[in-house]
Amino acid sequence: MPTPFFSARDLSFHLYEVLQADQLTRFAHFADHDRASFDMVLDAAAQIGENLLRPLLTVMDRDEPQLVDGKIRVHPDMRAIIRRFGDDGWINAPFTYDEGGQQLPATVMNAATFIFGAANYSSSVFPFLTTGAANLLRSFGSKELIDRFTPNMYTGRWQGTMALTEPDAGSSLSDITTSAEPIDEATGVYKIRGQKIYISAGDHDACDNVIHLMLAKIKGGPAGAKGISLFVVPQKRPTDTGELVDNDVLTAGVYHKMGYKGAPIAHLMVGSNDGTVGYLLGQPHQGLRYMFQMMNEARVGVGMNAVSIGTAAYYASLAYARERPQGRPIAEKGPGHDWSAKPQTPIVRHADVKRMLLFQKAVLEGSLGLLLQCSQLADTAHAAEGEEAQRAALLLDLLTPVAKSYPSEMGCLTTSAAVQILGGAGYTTDFPVEQFYREARIHPIHEGTTGIHGLDLLGRKVTMQGGKAVQIWVEAVQKTMTEAAEHDALKPLVDEMGKALGMLDTTTRHLLGLLPTDTEAALADATLYLELFGIVTIGWQWLRQATVAQEALPNAVSDEDRNFYQGKLMTARYFVEYELVKVRSLAKRLQSPDRVTVAMQSEWF
Amino acid sequence: MPTPFFSARDLSFHLYEVLQADQLTRFAHFADHDRASFDMVLDAAAQIGENLLRPLLTVMDRDEPQLVDGKIRVHPDMRAIIRRFGDDGWINAPFTYDEGGQQLPATVMNAATFIFGAANYSSSVFPFLTTGAANLLRSFGSKELIDRFTPNMYTGRWQGTMALTEPDAGSSLSDITTSAEPIDEATGVYKIRGQKIYISAGDHDACDNVIHLMLAKIKGGPAGAKGISLFVVPQKRPTDTGELVDNDVLTAGVYHKMGYKGAPIAHLMVGSNDGTVGYLLGQPHQGLRYMFQMMNEARVGVGMNAVSIGTAAYYASLAYARERPQGRPIAEKGPGHDWSAKPQTPIVRHADVKRMLLFQKAVLEGSLGLLLQCSQLADTAHAAEGEEAQRAALLLDLLTPVAKSYPSEMGCLTTSAAVQILGGAGYTTDFPVEQFYREARIHPIHEGTTGIHGLDLLGRKVTMQGGKAVQIWVEAVQKTMTEAAEHDALKPLVDEMGKALGMLDTTTRHLLGLLPTDTEAALADATLYLELFGIVTIGWQWLRQATVAQEALPNAVSDEDRNFYQGKLMTARYFVEYELVKVRSLAKRLQSPDRVTVAMQSEWF
Repeated sequence: MPTPFFSARDLSFHLYEVLQADQLTRFAHFADHDRASFDMVLDAAAQIGENLLRPLLTVMDRDEPQLVDGKIRVHPDMRAIIRRFGDDGWINAPFTYDEGGQQLPATVMNAATFIFGAANYSSSVFPFLTTGAANLLRSFGSKELIDRFTPNMYTGRWQGTMALTEPDAGSSLSDITTSAEPIDEATGVYKIRGQKIYISAGDHDACDNVIHLMLAKIKGGPAGAKGISLFVVPQKRPTDTGELVDNDVLTAGVYHKMGYKGAPIAHLMVGSNDGTVGYLLGQPHQGLRYMFQMMNEARVGVGMNAVSIGTAAYYASLAYARERPQGRPIAEKGPGHDWSAKPQTPIVRHADVKRMLLFQKAVLEGSLGLLLQCSQLADTAHAAEGEEAQRAALLLDLLTPVAKSYPSEMGCLTTSAAVQILGGAGYTTDFPVEQFYREARIHPIHEGTTGIHGLDLLGRKVTMQGGKAVQIWVEAVQKTMTEAAEHDALKPLVDEMGKALGMLDTTTRHLLGLLPTDTEAALADATLYLELFGIVTIGWQWLRQATVAQEALPNAVSDEDRNFYQGKLMTARYFVEYELVKVRSLAKRLQSPDRVTVAMQSEWF
Repeated sequence: MPTPFFSARDLSFHLYEVLQADQLTRFAHFADHDRASFDMVLDAAAQIGENLLRPLLTVMDRDEPQLVDGKIRVHPDMRAIIRRFGDDGWINAPFTYDEGGQQLPATVMNAATFIFGAANYSSSVFPFLTTGAANLLRSFGSKELIDRFTPNMYTGRWQGTMALTEPDAGSSLSDITTSAEPIDEATGVYKIRGQKIYISAGDHDACDNVIHLMLAKIKGGPAGAKGISLFVVPQKRPTDTGELVDNDVLTAGVYHKMGYKGAPIAHLMVGSNDGTVGYLLGQPHQGLRYMFQMMNEARVGVGMNAVSIGTAAYYASLAYARERPQGRPIAEKGPGHDWSAKPQTPIVRHADVKRMLLFQKAVLEGSLGLLLQCSQLADTAHAAEGEEAQRAALLLDLLTPVAKSYPSEMGCLTTSAAVQILGGAGYTTDFPVEQFYREARIHPIHEGTTGIHGLDLLGRKVTMQGGKAVQIWVEAVQKTMTEAAEHDALKPLVDEMGKALGMLDTTTRHLLGLLPTDTEAALADATLYLELFGIVTIGWQWLRQATVAQEALPNAVSDEDRNFYQGKLMTARYFVEYELVKVRSLAKRLQSPDRVTVAMQSEWF
């Protein structure tokens, strides 16, 4: 039996026992679904993951994409795989029936992408980049643009991308210089010229065309972020007769990178020969707003990718720990025991190895819970009405930087723990954990670095609408604590959670107090504030999971279920003991008056 | 000008301003040296690093060693480089004049290896593996063995290795099964048979022969660790006439690994055709003791390698941060400022980037201080007499697991910070930081995993001689605190250090109290105890450095010196604020009665 790369049991626990995701079907938009149809979707994802994606995990890492004659060559199986995603309806699954979609809840869709990512992250990015680009198109484009571009995107024939970054504008998007000049202002046709870098799936030979959703500045428009517009810029321009003609979007290079090597990341030259036509999406100068409306989704997606890779590494290290004999249990050592004559024990029996496994499990299953809850909030914001929808949207807005960054940062450490469990073997390419370690490192960088998300959380999200989002969140955490406190066994966890929440609250007040008068000092440690907020958020997730497990354990009918719930309860304890405890040090630092990072000068390094 | 990979100014600060390493020449063994001769050695190291090693950094990573016709092929320049190390006297530099060495203090030798490792870690391992193996030979071997093997090792013609690990015996060395049967017991000639894995430089085509210092068990000897002997097992056996004949040591494979790819790591089959002769080193069954007498040295070496790689990454990220414009200073943003019209600022001005730079500087320069001090302790233990030597040896014994593990574990995080500073660029192979990130990951694994060193520290070193080593260490820390407290500016740091030392002390007493009755629980978090001990130890190092800087600053005559000392003082503050503060959370966890990792069961994962 091959090593599993995720747990269907755990996914089902999150979806149905914790989140009660089947309740989403009470909304008219999702009314045709039920738990059985959700499970069919997830089973199908598991099949694709196991049979199509996983077998390419290693080879896509070793034979990375190459630029050959101006075109990026990717693994030859990718064409069939992307078409399969198209034919099976994955690419437009979340969209409406009218659009050929299935009105699939984001909660289920993201659970499926979790499976794909755990099977083979590189291969999973192609189809869902197209979903993201198509979502922008359908949300803000004219009927004509939608009809022209989306059908071939939904089938997987055309790749979609988000083309934002430029050589001098990464974190600072307002500084892009790609320009747009009207050819026909009335119909929104522009001549585009510029350079885009780090464009995921920006060019490859597993599709017939690439449709870039590209940020550019219309000449003569406002400076900075207010002058950014969004354009549809195809690699090849479809004519009225359906032909594809060259649109002067050249691939200047492919980036070779540390990990997720199977995904082609392109450097594009746009309009170098004056021949690039782009189609304005929506209104001029609204590009950044459009893009940011889709950002929550993409950022939750990145968090999910991070959990996927971490989960694959966790199961690889767990399988190894159960099989690898090394040393003896400490309890059997010491004077009086002739331990050297005894057979070696599987390393899963050593407390230090269990600690490294519990660390992974605690971070990953806590994060998975958060990400699926964020997906459910997105579904509720979309399908519910009135205050319910507004509260869900606000809470999602608040949690998005956490849901993106906590799993991304911690995924570097969980994959590192997986490597450590394998020891020397983990450092070799004979096992996949070193690949997961390399792949995990991208997530704190793309879709906004951790530093950017720290500023977003502390500088924007915590204060929006007079702090209403935080208030909604605190109410939700307190509700979880009240429910957990009904179980005596969970009271110690609730106590620690209460203290942690208090420390976060004191820290938040301290920093918000500084914000008006000393903005730089208030925001200097925003990354640490994000870390603190993330730990408390995952603590909350574990309290939810522990409460469900505590209630289910006495009624569990199989050993498998009893073991599962015991594992949840132990992992919740682990999180409180080893991770939640970190809020003490973080809160102390964040409330310290010493502004050493602000005061530091470049020439003193 | 190429990006620097280390700071000669900082190295000189550690050696002469903090450690006063030139005082080593008061010992007879080092009496022929002086500061000028030390500096010549370090200048020579910098030249070799810059001119020979650094140019191969990237190519040795890309074109990794391959097994071709039973022989591992390495970079073709390595042969000349190893010979250069031999011809210039590096390989036997620490040994006596009688042996052709220079009686160079370990303090200076390790400062030189720091430079080599920062230039190109893979290339630097070849010569000093030979030094380590030769040191075992000269320390425990007969004159005949020494004469037969060491001369060609010193010239770099023959490679030396440590051959310990086997497929079923990595951390658990007592379980090795490589066997030795006497051919001629009187002269210590044995027939050897077994398998060795992960043997660094275990075979390659840049030398004429490989001399393995190999652990094996003499048949009929005691079980477990008490039956391990040490043998000299050449790849080719030198005959009395000087010919080299095959010794049946076959290279079964080369490991492909995540990083430091330029160094060949071999899988060896020994005596498969019954033709391997090995020469017993010293007495039978004393192999592990001999090996462990050399371990301190190797482990300090690994810590130094970790600092080397981290330092190269730090300077690469610092250079990038000073050049890369992105965004505006926060102080210039906000309403009322038209900041978008202003040019972008170098990212080194952002507090979050300065935090990531200070993090690297704090960890790396704190660790470098510790490692050079450990080297000085080794020199004192070797060259001093009586109690001075004994105290130095004891303190070195205590600090060795910390000096190996703290830089190794933290080097993974500092190189990660370097990647983060470069953002997307850092994830590509266009910059060297991703390579440093991959290379750094080996150090928590080889020469004893971090888990093993945690057990060594808490289970052995803290309690040895009734806790005398800890007592010596605490006296040293308190002396540093007293000296620092004479400067008002340093008093806040001294206060925090005092609290941290108190928390460590309480934690140590708590765990030692558990040790006799519940050994497993007492040692379960030994890795965290090692982390706690490491943080306090590096805090001590920063207090030493800050005291020197505080005294030097008023007398500094150049801007360069003023900037340097300011940087030291700021970094000491950073360490206390952001790193030393972590002892609070660690001490709380380590004193908690919840034994969740001990209680966890394999089937609950």
